[in-house]
Amino acid sequence: MEKIEIFDSTLRDGAQSENVSFSVEDKLNIVQALDKMGIDYIEAGNPYSNPKDAEFFEKLKDVRLSYSKIVAFGSTRRRGITPEEDKNCQALLAAQTEYVAVFGKSSEWQVREVLGAQLAENLEMIRDTVAYLVKAGKHVFFDAEHFFDGYKQNPYYTLQTLRAADEAGAYKLVLCDTNGGCFPDEVAKIVKEMQSYFPGKIGIHCHDDVGCAVANTMAAVEAGANHVQGTYVGFGERCGNTNLSTVIGNLQLKRNYVCVPADCVRRMTQTARLICEVSNMRLAHTMPYVGKAAFAHKGGMHVDGVRKNSESFEHIHPELVGNRRHILLSEVSGRSALIAKVQEFIPGIDKNSPELIRLLEKLKEMERVGYQFEGATASLELLILKELGRFEPFFEMELFRIIGEQDCADRHMASAMVKLRVGDRFEITADEGDGPIHALDRALRKALEVFYPSLAGVRLVDYKVRVMEAGQATASRVRVLIESSDGENIWTTVGASTDIINASIQALVDSMEYKLYRDRMKGKMVQKL
Amino acid sequence: MEKIEIFDSTLRDGAQSENVSFSVEDKLNIVQALDKMGIDYIEAGNPYSNPKDAEFFEKLKDVRLSYSKIVAFGSTRRRGITPEEDKNCQALLAAQTEYVAVFGKSSEWQVREVLGAQLAENLEMIRDTVAYLVKAGKHVFFDAEHFFDGYKQNPYYTLQTLRAADEAGAYKLVLCDTNGGCFPDEVAKIVKEMQSYFPGKIGIHCHDDVGCAVANTMAAVEAGANHVQGTYVGFGERCGNTNLSTVIGNLQLKRNYVCVPADCVRRMTQTARLICEVSNMRLAHTMPYVGKAAFAHKGGMHVDGVRKNSESFEHIHPELVGNRRHILLSEVSGRSALIAKVQEFIPGIDKNSPELIRLLEKLKEMERVGYQFEGATASLELLILKELGRFEPFFEMELFRIIGEQDCADRHMASAMVKLRVGDRFEITADEGDGPIHALDRALRKALEVFYPSLAGVRLVDYKVRVMEAGQATASRVRVLIESSDGENIWTTVGASTDIINASIQALVDSMEYKLYRDRMKGKMVQKL
Repeated sequence: MEKIEIFDSTLRDGAQSENVSFSVEDKLNIVQALDKMGIDYIEAGNPYSNPKDAEFFEKLKDVRLSYSKIVAFGSTRRRGITPEEDKNCQALLAAQTEYVAVFGKSSEWQVREVLGAQLAENLEMIRDTVAYLVKAGKHVFFDAEHFFDGYKQNPYYTLQTLRAADEAGAYKLVLCDTNGGCFPDEVAKIVKEMQSYFPGKIGIHCHDDVGCAVANTMAAVEAGANHVQGTYVGFGERCGNTNLSTVIGNLQLKRNYVCVPADCVRRMTQTARLICEVSNMRLAHTMPYVGKAAFAHKGGMHVDGVRKNSESFEHIHPELVGNRRHILLSEVSGRSALIAKVQEFIPGIDKNSPELIRLLEKLKEMERVGYQFEGATASLELLILKELGRFEPFFEMELFRIIGEQDCADRHMASAMVKLRVGDRFEITADEGDGPIHALDRALRKALEVFYPSLAGVRLVDYKVRVMEAGQATASRVRVLIESSDGENIWTTVGASTDIINASIQALVDSMEYKLYRDRMKGKMVQKL
Repeated sequence: MEKIEIFDSTLRDGAQSENVSFSVEDKLNIVQALDKMGIDYIEAGNPYSNPKDAEFFEKLKDVRLSYSKIVAFGSTRRRGITPEEDKNCQALLAAQTEYVAVFGKSSEWQVREVLGAQLAENLEMIRDTVAYLVKAGKHVFFDAEHFFDGYKQNPYYTLQTLRAADEAGAYKLVLCDTNGGCFPDEVAKIVKEMQSYFPGKIGIHCHDDVGCAVANTMAAVEAGANHVQGTYVGFGERCGNTNLSTVIGNLQLKRNYVCVPADCVRRMTQTARLICEVSNMRLAHTMPYVGKAAFAHKGGMHVDGVRKNSESFEHIHPELVGNRRHILLSEVSGRSALIAKVQEFIPGIDKNSPELIRLLEKLKEMERVGYQFEGATASLELLILKELGRFEPFFEMELFRIIGEQDCADRHMASAMVKLRVGDRFEITADEGDGPIHALDRALRKALEVFYPSLAGVRLVDYKVRVMEAGQATASRVRVLIESSDGENIWTTVGASTDIINASIQALVDSMEYKLYRDRMKGKMVQKL
């Protein structure tokens, strides 16, 4: 099984994405996640063009990685000066990494029009820079920018740029589809030709502007490239870089190559989630292998098929990549998925029982007004229990009031008052917070902890707001999802309303109720009266 | 230039996506958008398995389309009965569409294990069903489910299923990669072979489970398929179906095929946005051709390159597909993008002026605490004007207070009070709304319209909330984006805070100020004092 090197540029090319901006702490978290994932190379930044990156390379000197090698990125030297005089080359040395990636122009048109240099001059810039860095003891990746577009215009010149880097001692020659406009057939043909000139030295770097980055990368590997650049979840300028998680899944699970150590494959999904969380980006549900919906089944027939045999609608077993199957509730899947869920609580319930039909109706109506239970299993379980008369309430909300205000000195303040009842005892209290919902959360806990001390251990780990029905602006319906944890379990609850405060309190109340219900089931309930 | 038929299944396969659920109204909007886009076929639903779809076909009988043909979808007849006795076949007839799509199993393993039928029996089911529908005057697309996986196991049997459909008079034989696990090389080889048996009749239907749906579809077309199925923005079960907007861009703009009428190509982006808006799904910024970031440039060098010549970092001109270039402000792009923006207001401002440097610092600090100006150009313009001392305020907020409450009868109420100053006149008023922000919006307008009647014509068209720093739950920072319109222009403003009320009022105030500023610039300002 051939080894394919994986080179991740989340921290460099990925940082070019719209909406992505990493703190030093974020970057360290990502480096550690990629190291655990068994990624060969981590391109950590451009120490010359970005002072924050230079600082980050300083920090990295103290970080011990068990697998990955750190790479510093920069360009070939400027025109008319030596590498010794070039600040970019010096910054690459100062980063003190064993590996460096240097980009240079491979396209005649780019050299003339954008760089404004002579063709021979550009070759010297490549040769000098690579030779200088190799002499300084670096392994050099030469990123041949605009390689494929350049090849289509003047194949001879693109070849010369690779030859210059190769003769100067570059470790890999990385062919870049910088504009992302190439297709797999072109990539296969061109890589094959380059592989014949520089066997074992060809790498590939694609962008997704025609939706073919993954296929192009696969085509390059099948044509002989043994080094793949991309970003783990596809971050990158414009439409993004090659999604490495997809490529690793494809090559390692379906095409018999080795990209990462075998025992890292099952980390694929958690690594993707961690990188998105750190980056404050949403992981697309539809992302191959690692997305939440990658193994989700909604249609009635599909659900039955998957139940009969998972291979009928899944190209791999989700467990292989640390993901899992989801059976979605929906009008199309009909009752069978819901019945399976209800049977978790009430084994042997009759499929045609009126209470089950009523529950299904209720669920449809709630979905229609904006609830969504696909992710909020805790709220779904509570709803099932309540509708089937299996839920004994822990408390009743009597009243809440929130006040938000701001005066002319721009001081703003949020406070909340809550009154609730447990049995025949009332508790009324108030608290303030960073915003009205924060204040409400604190006041509600304060009142409840009087009765249920275990709630002190519950922490809200995530709070999400989704505005629905775009087009009706501030009167739109809002869906709130809250993820809670007590250190042992994590559960998600949902609320929906035209009023964000109201939607939030529904999800908050469900979160508390779910915790109390679970405690009671486990016989761990402590109640003070 | 060869014509490739485009077949959209947003309303059928797309409705299998997690989180997608269409109302009848939504479906009609999507049908009309696809018709305007020049899509050949619109698969509108399964009239048998979904009663809401049956109802929709009723509605469609009265809808006049200028280009697209409506298709009803269903399966081959059940075992042991005739098509006349089969409710699914009857539902297909009742839909009264000229075209129908019928899926049948093409894989030996699927027939035996999932359908539990004999191989010959399945061939009869295909043959009977297609023949029956053809006899009833329908054009029949035969969707050969699990075709590629089936071919890999028993190529002879898959061929027999196509032959059965072909002999029965099917119009197209659509090869489906139902599990989405195939690669372009496999697809190319298999399509080529099938095309040799059934020239001109082969269609392709892919899923994106290995990130290759677009490339597989392209490979099939190059191998002779002339009919492409998918969903316009890639909706679909699990990882989604082939994204038709990408395929249309690729085939029509880069490979010399005709998919849609030439004058429809520039509708590509607006069609994608409309479908996402109707579906209440976020259009991925990174989507090829139509995404907001598809032509966005952030890196300093790239920005300079694009300025010099757009071809340097763009594979096509964004205008061709109705999209546009975005120059993003960020630490990497440095000052040059901001300077360009400032120069729109203050031509000839010195690039090294202290006020410009101060502005840049301010901007960085605001981005650090959660503001984002990439989309909110109106807020950015106001910030520039204010920081450079070019903004004369229209009003001052003196005080606001919002109150949200809910009692034990689950009645909830939101109201807001606003006090503001224009010159030396004060106005204090209050209003209520569906939620606290809605109430605040109404109270603020009410107070301002006393002075500025033109604000009565401003409508908020979208309101978005983004919770940042996941992990700090209800005390997280919140970013609010508001899109406003006065019928003539649309503008977007931003606010950020730990308090959603505070963030919303910032964006609301910016929205009003921007409208007033634009009116003043155009000499249209009417102020009552």
